[in-house]
Amino acid sequence: MPLTDFCKAPVITISPDQKVLDAVNLMLDKNVGCVVVVEQDRPIGILTDRDIVLRVMAKRKDASTTTVQDVMTPNPISAPEAIGIWDLIQAMKKHGVRRFPIVAGDGKLVGIITLDDLIELMGGELADLGRAIATELSHPIPAGASWKSEDRLLR
Amino acid sequence: MPLTDFCKAPVITISPDQKVLDAVNLMLDKNVGCVVVVEQDRPIGILTDRDIVLRVMAKRKDASTTTVQDVMTPNPISAPEAIGIWDLIQAMKKHGVRRFPIVAGDGKLVGIITLDDLIELMGGELADLGRAIATELSHPIPAGASWKSEDRLLR
Amino acid sequence: MPLTDFCKAPVITISPDQKVLDAVNLMLDKNVGCVVVVEQDRPIGILTDRDIVLRVMAKRKDASTTTVQDVMTPNPISAPEAIGIWDLIQAMKKHGVRRFPIVAGDGKLVGIITLDDLIELMGGELADLGRAIATELSHPIPAGASWKSEDRLLR
Amino acid sequence: MPLTDFCKAPVITISPDQKVLDAVNLMLDKNVGCVVVVEQDRPIGILTDRDIVLRVMAKRKDASTTTVQDVMTPNPISAPEAIGIWDLIQAMKKHGVRRFPIVAGDGKLVGIITLDDLIELMGGELADLGRAIATELSHPIPAGASWKSEDRLLR
Repeated sequence: MPLTDFCKAPVITISPDQKVLDAVNLMLDKNVGCVVVVEQDRPIGILTDRDIVLRVMAKRKDASTTTVQDVMTPNPISAPEAIGIWDLIQAMKKHGVRRFPIVAGDGKLVGIITLDDLIELMGGELADLGRAIATELSHPIPAGASWKSEDRLLR
Repeated sequence: MPLTDFCKAPVITISPDQKVLDAVNLMLDKNVGCVVVVEQDRPIGILTDRDIVLRVMAKRKDASTTTVQDVMTPNPISAPEAIGIWDLIQAMKKHGVRRFPIVAGDGKLVGIITLDDLIELMGGELADLGRAIATELSHPIPAGASWKSEDRLLR
Repeated sequence: MPLTDFCKAPVITISPDQKVLDAVNLMLDKNVGCVVVVEQDRPIGILTDRDIVLRVMAKRKDASTTTVQDVMTPNPISAPEAIGIWDLIQAMKKHGVRRFPIVAGDGKLVGIITLDDLIELMGGELADLGRAIATELSHPIPAGASWKSEDRLLR
Repeated sequence: MPLTDFCKAPVITISPDQKVLDAVNLMLDKNVGCVVVVEQDRPIGILTDRDIVLRVMAKRKDASTTTVQDVMTPNPISAPEAIGIWDLIQAMKKHGVRRFPIVAGDGKLVGIITLDDLIELMGGELADLGRAIATELSHPIPAGASWKSEDRLLR
């Protein structure tokens, strides 16, 4: 299953030279907490609602003149869309961030995956495991079954 | 981290022509609930305490003369040691089993991984995620930071 | 929701003076791994498939003459049906067991809850939390809303 | 263990008649994403960094003159400090919020508990369960053990 299938929130983008107020309006209209700053469809920065409070309001900057690139977090760590879920979890832990832009093989932005997505995913796996296994117990050996050199390796 | 590092229980082996009573004694001595049946170090069957109750006792067979291969579950699905944790979880769900023998590239048995191992592992990941992320919030942008075409792709 | 609603496996009972072979047949017929030993509907022991292997077969006892009370684990810790899920999890951790008989207020057996049940339950909660929260974000304040000394305490 | 022991983030308070800019400065200084609005030590509102972006910036209000009570979410649902963890999880799901102020018996604010706290907690429980149980298996019956009408009910 492609990684983007697990992304619940839409990925909303903005240009680096747009104003912070444009980002604010996007957050309101699209009901997101974060916009990805792109140049030629590639992520070059990330800007969250919290960044706006701390880097614009707290600094008494004017949101209608300050550009996105002045206050964004530049060079966000991105995840290739082919990355495994487990590696993604490790990366989130290691870097201590809540979200990664996801990029295709050509480096273009295709989605954003968040901590909430991963929690829902891991919780679902655990629930499924509990359920699947509860029905295991011992099955009868199929009649006439015996060992033959079959290939039964997981791939 | 190699998959075998997550295996808590030792992998205990037996030959297919040994008696069920030998398996019983191994389960007692080594405090395990399952033995892997091997031929030339390759897993060809699996035998659990439950299998012994249902396939030997319930059938009134004699544990001191019945061979392991007569009552084992033949051809167990094995996991290559290079498999990803996430794929392993999917396989456990799909096949509805609690444990997989783990084999090296040459097909030889190197461990056994159980549902309990995976639960401990996933629980630990969730706890770590909660902890790591709780400290995220917004960091100041490093002074003078600006966007440059850095490579920041997870690998 | 009553605790027994979370119990997936049926609770199968046996009398202390029945034979181990009767327990074996019950485990086969009912597809369970454990029977609860009752006297006047109250749990006085527990017997698992594993106990039978280690305490009957390994000791070369005869399952058709050995009684259940001779090999059961006596005095199992039971959970009152009104216990909270969280307390139950703590108890499972503390006592290191996989299952608790559940008893009604009068001490009579009403169910059995297992580690698998709790894993399914906790996983489901985590998945639900991830899902519920992903849609939170900020809601507009209802028009005309203002603070009044309402009672908004969780109960 | 008291609920407040699970709260990782400090609870930061503000008065309803303070300015939004004061809230912003608190969020910056204390590194929190949310302040609790109190009157006589009782929570009467809550204000997050996101609320400030959507209700102040997006509405082009002036943070240095707008009061906290004009834009806070009034009447937040609070959790009594004696609430069980499980009930708290249910409430978070039901109400779709990420955090609850915690109040003592007299209604006074004593902490704030967040989704991140609960995820860390539940993950830790799962990891502990996997670990505790992996060592269960079957223990020998203590010599001379037999059933007596002991009280072995969880409390």
